[in-house]
Amino acid sequence: MVFVVNTELKMGVGKIAAQVGHATLALYRLLQTQSNWKEQCTKWEETTVTKIAVQGQSTHHLLELKHRAYELRLPSIIVHDAGRTQVEPGSLTVFAVFGKVADVNDITGKLKLL
Amino acid sequence: MVFVVNTELKMGVGKIAAQVGHATLALYRLLQTQSNWKEQCTKWEETTVTKIAVQGQSTHHLLELKHRAYELRLPSIIVHDAGRTQVEPGSLTVFAVFGKVADVNDITGKLKLL
Repeated sequence: MVFVVNTELKMGVGKIAAQVGHATLALYRLLQTQSNWKEQCTKWEETTVTKIAVQGQSTHHLLELKHRAYELRLPSIIVHDAGRTQVEPGSLTVFAVFGKVADVNDITGKLKLL
Repeated sequence: MVFVVNTELKMGVGKIAAQVGHATLALYRLLQTQSNWKEQCTKWEETTVTKIAVQGQSTHHLLELKHRAYELRLPSIIVHDAGRTQVEPGSLTVFAVFGKVADVNDITGKLKLL
C-alpha cells in the first residue's frame, strides 16, 4: 500500500497519521470485496505488509493519481475528511493504492517520501 | 481507536504514518475475531471512525499502557517494526487501543496529541 498525503492541507503529524489510518482501513475493506484482490491482500499480509507514505502536492494531484489508478485497474481510495479538526469538511487528505510493486510505482514511484 | 506513538524512536512523519497504518489494520483484525468487539467495531465504522494519535514517551511506556488495557479488558495491540528503515528490528513503534471513549480515556486521556 502506498499513501499519498495532500501536503497542501498543512496537516500536523498526528492528523496525517490518523488519515493514513483511515486510508488503510478503507483500502483494506475494498480489497476484501474483490476475490482476486482479496487473495493478493492475504499474500501481502503474510509477507511484507509494506506501507509507504509519500508527498502529494494538492487535491488536484490526488485526483489525477486516482484517475491513473482507475486506468490501470488498481484498487485505490481517497479519504474525505469529516473536517472536525484542522481541515475543511470534505477535504481530500490521502490517496491510497494497492497492487504489484511495478504497477504501483507507475503511479507513485516518482513522489518524494513523506 | 487511539494510537500512542513511541516518540523515543524519533521516527519521521512518513514512518509514523505507516506505523499507524499497521496499527489500524492489526487492531481492526483483532476486533473481527471477537463477536462482541466486532459489533462495536461495526458501530464505530458506521458513525465516527474516530482515530486519534497521541504521544507515548518510550517503549516502557507503551508496555505499561498495554498492561493497563489488559487489566481493563480492552482490545489493544503493539506494532513491532520489521526495522527495515529508521528503527532497530523489533522496535515497539505504536500502541493502539479500542473501546468506549470513557474506557479508552482511562488509559490514554492524559497523553498529549501528536
